[in-house]
Amino acid sequence: MAMIKVGIVGGTGYTGVELLRLLVNHSAVQVVVITSRSEAGRPVADLFPNLRGHLDLAFTEPDPALLASCDLVFFATPNGIAMQQVPELLEAGVRVIDLAADFRISDQALWEKWYGMQHACPERLAEAVYGLPEVNREAVKQARLVANPGCYPTAVGLGFLPLVEQGLIELDHLVADTKSGVSGAGRGASVAALMGETGESFKAYAIPGHRHQPEIRQTLMRASGGDVGLTFVPHLVPMIRGIEATLYARLKDVSVDLQALFEKRYADEPFVDVMPAGSHPETRSVRGVNHCRIAVHRPLDGDVVVISTVIDNLVKGAAGQAVQNMNLMFGLAEDAGLEQVALLP
Amino acid sequence: MAMIKVGIVGGTGYTGVELLRLLVNHSAVQVVVITSRSEAGRPVADLFPNLRGHLDLAFTEPDPALLASCDLVFFATPNGIAMQQVPELLEAGVRVIDLAADFRISDQALWEKWYGMQHACPERLAEAVYGLPEVNREAVKQARLVANPGCYPTAVGLGFLPLVEQGLIELDHLVADTKSGVSGAGRGASVAALMGETGESFKAYAIPGHRHQPEIRQTLMRASGGDVGLTFVPHLVPMIRGIEATLYARLKDVSVDLQALFEKRYADEPFVDVMPAGSHPETRSVRGVNHCRIAVHRPLDGDVVVISTVIDNLVKGAAGQAVQNMNLMFGLAEDAGLEQVALLP
Amino acid sequence: MAMIKVGIVGGTGYTGVELLRLLVNHSAVQVVVITSRSEAGRPVADLFPNLRGHLDLAFTEPDPALLASCDLVFFATPNGIAMQQVPELLEAGVRVIDLAADFRISDQALWEKWYGMQHACPERLAEAVYGLPEVNREAVKQARLVANPGCYPTAVGLGFLPLVEQGLIELDHLVADTKSGVSGAGRGASVAALMGETGESFKAYAIPGHRHQPEIRQTLMRASGGDVGLTFVPHLVPMIRGIEATLYARLKDVSVDLQALFEKRYADEPFVDVMPAGSHPETRSVRGVNHCRIAVHRPLDGDVVVISTVIDNLVKGAAGQAVQNMNLMFGLAEDAGLEQVALLP
Amino acid sequence: MAMIKVGIVGGTGYTGVELLRLLVNHSAVQVVVITSRSEAGRPVADLFPNLRGHLDLAFTEPDPALLASCDLVFFATPNGIAMQQVPELLEAGVRVIDLAADFRISDQALWEKWYGMQHACPERLAEAVYGLPEVNREAVKQARLVANPGCYPTAVGLGFLPLVEQGLIELDHLVADTKSGVSGAGRGASVAALMGETGESFKAYAIPGHRHQPEIRQTLMRASGGDVGLTFVPHLVPMIRGIEATLYARLKDVSVDLQALFEKRYADEPFVDVMPAGSHPETRSVRGVNHCRIAVHRPLDGDVVVISTVIDNLVKGAAGQAVQNMNLMFGLAEDAGLEQVALLP
Repeated sequence: MAMIKVGIVGGTGYTGVELLRLLVNHSAVQVVVITSRSEAGRPVADLFPNLRGHLDLAFTEPDPALLASCDLVFFATPNGIAMQQVPELLEAGVRVIDLAADFRISDQALWEKWYGMQHACPERLAEAVYGLPEVNREAVKQARLVANPGCYPTAVGLGFLPLVEQGLIELDHLVADTKSGVSGAGRGASVAALMGETGESFKAYAIPGHRHQPEIRQTLMRASGGDVGLTFVPHLVPMIRGIEATLYARLKDVSVDLQALFEKRYADEPFVDVMPAGSHPETRSVRGVNHCRIAVHRPLDGDVVVISTVIDNLVKGAAGQAVQNMNLMFGLAEDAGLEQVALLP
Repeated sequence: MAMIKVGIVGGTGYTGVELLRLLVNHSAVQVVVITSRSEAGRPVADLFPNLRGHLDLAFTEPDPALLASCDLVFFATPNGIAMQQVPELLEAGVRVIDLAADFRISDQALWEKWYGMQHACPERLAEAVYGLPEVNREAVKQARLVANPGCYPTAVGLGFLPLVEQGLIELDHLVADTKSGVSGAGRGASVAALMGETGESFKAYAIPGHRHQPEIRQTLMRASGGDVGLTFVPHLVPMIRGIEATLYARLKDVSVDLQALFEKRYADEPFVDVMPAGSHPETRSVRGVNHCRIAVHRPLDGDVVVISTVIDNLVKGAAGQAVQNMNLMFGLAEDAGLEQVALLP
Repeated sequence: MAMIKVGIVGGTGYTGVELLRLLVNHSAVQVVVITSRSEAGRPVADLFPNLRGHLDLAFTEPDPALLASCDLVFFATPNGIAMQQVPELLEAGVRVIDLAADFRISDQALWEKWYGMQHACPERLAEAVYGLPEVNREAVKQARLVANPGCYPTAVGLGFLPLVEQGLIELDHLVADTKSGVSGAGRGASVAALMGETGESFKAYAIPGHRHQPEIRQTLMRASGGDVGLTFVPHLVPMIRGIEATLYARLKDVSVDLQALFEKRYADEPFVDVMPAGSHPETRSVRGVNHCRIAVHRPLDGDVVVISTVIDNLVKGAAGQAVQNMNLMFGLAEDAGLEQVALLP
Repeated sequence: MAMIKVGIVGGTGYTGVELLRLLVNHSAVQVVVITSRSEAGRPVADLFPNLRGHLDLAFTEPDPALLASCDLVFFATPNGIAMQQVPELLEAGVRVIDLAADFRISDQALWEKWYGMQHACPERLAEAVYGLPEVNREAVKQARLVANPGCYPTAVGLGFLPLVEQGLIELDHLVADTKSGVSGAGRGASVAALMGETGESFKAYAIPGHRHQPEIRQTLMRASGGDVGLTFVPHLVPMIRGIEATLYARLKDVSVDLQALFEKRYADEPFVDVMPAGSHPETRSVRGVNHCRIAVHRPLDGDVVVISTVIDNLVKGAAGQAVQNMNLMFGLAEDAGLEQVALLP
């Protein structure tokens, strides 16, 4: 079978190097181009020495013709870049997975409000498939443009979905208290992300409002068919990788078998692991892998359900889910290139 | 003025060394005895080299006569020890601050259920003063026996109190999502607290139920005069010191000026710092000091109030609050020995 | 081709779970038994949740018959265990790789001095092959008993070998200043390895003498054919995985092309990466993989050569090197099961 | 007694906030001005919340007249700033402590080679006193301009001095293998110091040559009266504070009582702690304090002496030593404001 020719736009961030880590060992893929204005000409393995011996490619200036010759282009760019280049690529018959936020929210006005810019190709918003395979698998298979979900939205969405889909919880006051390692802030130079600033400390941030709130709400409203009230608070953890989401909702009926519900919902999902009753998932149990592990509890046998989910923000929360989507789009085994075991300890 | 003669029972844990760090520079205190069965005979500064040059004392076997000669005895022991020795000390006229949980919950049956043992001196429960100065200052001043609050209960209690006291929130479904550094698990040998197990990872624990839930609920019920429903979930953060608590409640009336409410409530408190509107407190801003910093938010201008509080679990959450209580009990300046600036970075 | 039937004795430590991580994705291997007295009956994936979905096996009591039915048995046990069971296994035709120290030092008296016990099968010491493929590849291929090298000895040995083999440095006063993450101390309950004790701190240990000193010296003396004086100081780094070794030696002749020497020496080695001149290898560049990366320098153009090497102590320093040795012993591709890319960040 | 009026130039870095932490509780000092071009007008406690309640001052634009009204000005600036402003301040009768490198090296040509710029006031180099009180106490007391030593030079110098002063080691091939937490890299925005880059990893840097090598060599040559050959390699540790230096030298005579030598040399030093024989100092034992702890060993009873020293790079390695120098210059108790106990754990 012919190799899938892949291009990556913006490969110098953590999402980019993670995509490369997964793709260089993917037997059906050939990475043919990685663009970076700032690092053009520099061998990729010089910037990311973990790739020494695995990838013999240098960063290049963005070259539309070269990208147009790919079967698939990943955008691992800041928000607002992909939307400018996607129309041309789609017209050239190239499929696109955007790891940024440009196509995640279907409501143009809502997107523009949260992202503070005008959308460059609103006409493609309807076509874009929200790439959460656990809800959109069939649509992803047919998609030409996939909006890869945000990291928090993946962790929160997978945790709430079984309950929301079945109408088992009050939807007006959901709480998602989420925590992320610092790699979520990216690889850009900043004071705030220095180890001297983030190490040995913990804090909430963006309590007044965070861009992932409308994205999560969109997922939950689609699943419920009605309105959803969601309080979403992210926190910064002094570690590099990992997201944990602790979710709180009021049960309509305390007699439901929560464990069975979750196990049934995700029985056929290759990357969602419902842990045994009583478990507490650790982020390290998914370090480097595409799994989401979930535990569901009812504290003190009351009427509140608490769900704890963990993902690796760079894998299931970004590059891994993008590869999963690619596999679906190209008819490959869904877990191709994603068979690794998490690095523990 | 004569120095206060202080004894410490069980000084080999993190609470013990932290008490010593604060007391050796306290100008009104003389530490005369530190007991430890396992380390008897060993110089304290041999076990804790940060005390070299500050403390010339060795651990000793528990000696009732020596303890009875103190003005004040701190118990920095596991739960269930203090309650066996307190009666004798009180009868000898020694005042006691218990940093463990033996006297924190007034309801004997409730205590016995959560702590899995029979209470050894239930007749002293009524006399014990819950040592949260921000609610019990006058009682602490008169107390002979102080139950020093738990770490999470301090962080959660201080965050909810202004709202609960004024009846501004729905009390049936409070949520406290809390996070602690690993020193909260103590200095005992264990696999679970190895750096190889807790480093670079994050998890919730004790979701089904944690001993601090009834303690927090007791504080909030006393403040509200009515019943309180509380979901409490603790998490383990890969850092050594610090607790952050993110609290969620539904407002009865969204027009209340939350910032003014909190500032007014704590205006005269030496160790509670209400940060400017829009702030996100970091645990490092209280590293090594007795302060609790608080921020209050109303996300997306909705009807949910979110409070974020931070303390150092070993200081305001344990040893520092114990020193604060000691200062009150002995008529000293409330911040004597507690004037340090947090270590940042 | 028939799968290699593998047994693991002592699978509850960090070396054990790392072996499993590598072996469950090794296409030529079937793990048939993992023994543990303390965890017998417990599913392995219950203790190590990263293995959920990858390994459907429970720990068992040691069963000599079952082990004797394996093609290969790995010992991931404390020192002193393998030497008691190896004779019986070898007689049964089972090949053995010992990840502990029992067969690393050929000189029985020297071994007994450093390890503080009598050797249980000194008659096998001569037969054991020291499993550093970069010096003993052919012997490993024929070996029935492989002594897998220590972590520090691997990092130090690979760094000094090119110079020692060619007689280019003064051998009387070598210095190896080495640093290891905490997983090197194992997964046993202890106070010293608590995150509260090792986090945010750095220290040297075992300066008076460490067991890896004679092992390294043996490697260097074999390579040089003469005596070697070595000062070896290990340090503990507040991270989980990784070893860095900084090596110092006096050059006999400053005109030698050090970069070319190292590149030539390791040109055909699949797991030794000589980095470009001027590089400083980071431990994260080998996190989870079997590579040793090396840089060689001559500071201020003087007569001292400084070599910096990095490995993952659990992979090239333990389980990965064991798999590499297994591959050699069974005629597989040397990098089978070891093709992963390091997890960075 | 009148308070010493202190100004700080460049107070937004880690050295600046650390100076403030120490000075706000110093009973003889009043901080009257803190300059910062980038943060002018912003309250200091807004940038550094640990100072809330301790310091009611805002950053200001540099104001020569205001600085000239101080008794003492600290420069906590990048290299090359102090040398431009010092002459004017000295002429105005203001004393100066420069925490940067401008006046550390007396040899102008050597300084210019390593720092890559022309010195702006070479005529003051001879007057500047190198502020290592353990060698220059009397000169510091009389100094008008103190060059505060570098962090590594303090840790390495104090470790080698007893041996070098007494001529007990071969001076041609000293080795200093040093390790620092990331706060040593400062608080400027950078990719290299992100937690995503430095967390959970360890590496050597600047092996070809580092600016602290000539500074250390100057100290050792002054102490020995002869030439010194020094190989100096720094490393980056994934922690925030702390330096450990492991020093290697060949003894001329192995019969010297090393422990007694070190204890005698530092018997009267308030901030140098020679630990008991057999010790291994931890950086956490000096976290936040001005002490240097030292252990001296002779591994395997050979002819190599190994010294391990630890300091807090921001305290004894910067701000604390600056305060110690200030105390000496103004006739205060040498440990005024420096009496704290290290934060452990």
